[in-house]
Amino acid sequence: MTALYDVAAIGNAIVDVIAQCDDAFLAREGLVKGSMALIDPARASSLYDAMSAGIEASGGSAANTAAGVASFGGKVAFIGKVADDQLGHVFRHDMTAIGCVFTTPSLAEGPATAQSLINVTPDAQRTMSTYLGACVELTPDDVDPAIIEAAQVAYLEGYLFDPPEARRAFAKAAALSHGAGRKISMTLSDSFMVDRHRSALLGFIETQCDIVFANESEVCSLFETTDFAAAVQALADRCEIAAVTRSEKGSVVAASGQLHEISAYPVEKVVDTTGAGDQYAAGFLYGLTQGRPLPVCGQLGSLAAAEVIDHYGPRPQVNLRELAAKYGL
Amino acid sequence: MTALYDVAAIGNAIVDVIAQCDDAFLAREGLVKGSMALIDPARASSLYDAMSAGIEASGGSAANTAAGVASFGGKVAFIGKVADDQLGHVFRHDMTAIGCVFTTPSLAEGPATAQSLINVTPDAQRTMSTYLGACVELTPDDVDPAIIEAAQVAYLEGYLFDPPEARRAFAKAAALSHGAGRKISMTLSDSFMVDRHRSALLGFIETQCDIVFANESEVCSLFETTDFAAAVQALADRCEIAAVTRSEKGSVVAASGQLHEISAYPVEKVVDTTGAGDQYAAGFLYGLTQGRPLPVCGQLGSLAAAEVIDHYGPRPQVNLRELAAKYGL
Repeated sequence: MTALYDVAAIGNAIVDVIAQCDDAFLAREGLVKGSMALIDPARASSLYDAMSAGIEASGGSAANTAAGVASFGGKVAFIGKVADDQLGHVFRHDMTAIGCVFTTPSLAEGPATAQSLINVTPDAQRTMSTYLGACVELTPDDVDPAIIEAAQVAYLEGYLFDPPEARRAFAKAAALSHGAGRKISMTLSDSFMVDRHRSALLGFIETQCDIVFANESEVCSLFETTDFAAAVQALADRCEIAAVTRSEKGSVVAASGQLHEISAYPVEKVVDTTGAGDQYAAGFLYGLTQGRPLPVCGQLGSLAAAEVIDHYGPRPQVNLRELAAKYGL
Repeated sequence: MTALYDVAAIGNAIVDVIAQCDDAFLAREGLVKGSMALIDPARASSLYDAMSAGIEASGGSAANTAAGVASFGGKVAFIGKVADDQLGHVFRHDMTAIGCVFTTPSLAEGPATAQSLINVTPDAQRTMSTYLGACVELTPDDVDPAIIEAAQVAYLEGYLFDPPEARRAFAKAAALSHGAGRKISMTLSDSFMVDRHRSALLGFIETQCDIVFANESEVCSLFETTDFAAAVQALADRCEIAAVTRSEKGSVVAASGQLHEISAYPVEKVVDTTGAGDQYAAGFLYGLTQGRPLPVCGQLGSLAAAEVIDHYGPRPQVNLRELAAKYGL
């Protein structure tokens, strides 16, 4: 069957609140730089009160990736849970406006739309404190077979391992996708998430995942090692394609016994690294679903990541298809 | 009495939704480039549906100016009306986080927090469609004498001439401010607003305003002329200080029979002109309340305007006090 979608992403439907801070702020608030911590509404309120003025932008890891793929010109669908409130409306608008099919019903009653309070330090690192809100109400029923079975690749964010119902939704999607002869990809999302769910994650990767995205600290956390090359090899042994990002050092793609090293694109001034990994995955998956060679997939990922880190916000501000053309990709 | 505040701003409390569009979009939606049009909820909904994905940022003309003054290190207060909803919460947070005193109670029932749907074309021009929502419920009761009388300068946005109750609040503020021996400043905001309320505006300027901000098209609209120099002179004849901006041509400041021409600061790439006039007023008023000479006030205005147009969003992304120091101001 021809795929209606290049990528169907399943993830937390989150609106980001992005503000600048200094390192002392992170220390004062007990935040670990570069990490994602889950917080409850009371903590969200007190942390927000302490934060500087910000901007709001639709986020969510897999949703950001879907937005990136759409910006390249790919066909995308998204599954995730917002509430029927102002921020939920914003999130839905932003997905729909990029041409993404997003039919998951909003939560009529219960928690508010998820927010991630993102503090960006002068070194452009982002530290996320996420109130999952309506996201915890994503259930297997929300995983529409008509969408998953019609997508070349289903893309799952590792953050979904935290809410129990979402993890079941995750498993359902994997079964549906493979049942339809499609591919499953996932991102490890966060080294602390990896630490919380290591054995379950390893099991899922070994039995279900074709393509796995990670960054350096995540892949090292997964295999409890500081040896990067060994960790990449261990991951590559467990799936078809392992794509591991290393910030300004670029990325490595391991597949079929081969290792491809891909450079990062130079960025004049890195402003906010939020969404870098998400956009790398977007470029990579777009390339892959268009049948491009793996090194080109990696370059498309690097290019999309370079674009997103030169401004605040986790999604592209330029048309990535045109940007790729400009760079001869 | 020593002033507790350098500037007390009264304005519409608005959250901006900023999205990119092309000129064809403006034509299709019947929008006049560079203008501000008032819209009702139904139109807001249909226009938003048609817009591309955006970001949200606290806006509102006078509120943006207050944010700019605060970024320079000035002491500011703001009076404006939000609803008790998610976007109202965002607006209040963003004002409070910059150190602005903002005590106007939220509207418990009634319309939602105001939103301005801002479409930015590739030439960086912003076209605004504003649903005033809770702003129309700003009344004279919200104008706290303790704030207005304690501010060196009360700053009023011309947009407040549209909602009738807000216009009465405006008049109350002017009376309080002058009664306390303070200064009144206002911005003309928009050439269509000027056109709608020309005679009332002229009367208000002649009898109440010490400092008036305008751009080229607004001052020309006010005096129904295409002769810029004549319009500036006509404005200067009616108030103490007339500060008129001219985009990349800089600004002119007319006062005490003297005309100061001030250059614009060069900007590498103009991204979004939203807030340029607001930030010019911020720099100017900050300088003025610190007792700086008028040409320096104009330069501070130019610098703040240059900062805000190199990124999306109507408020500074860097500390303007540090930026001014870097430029020897």
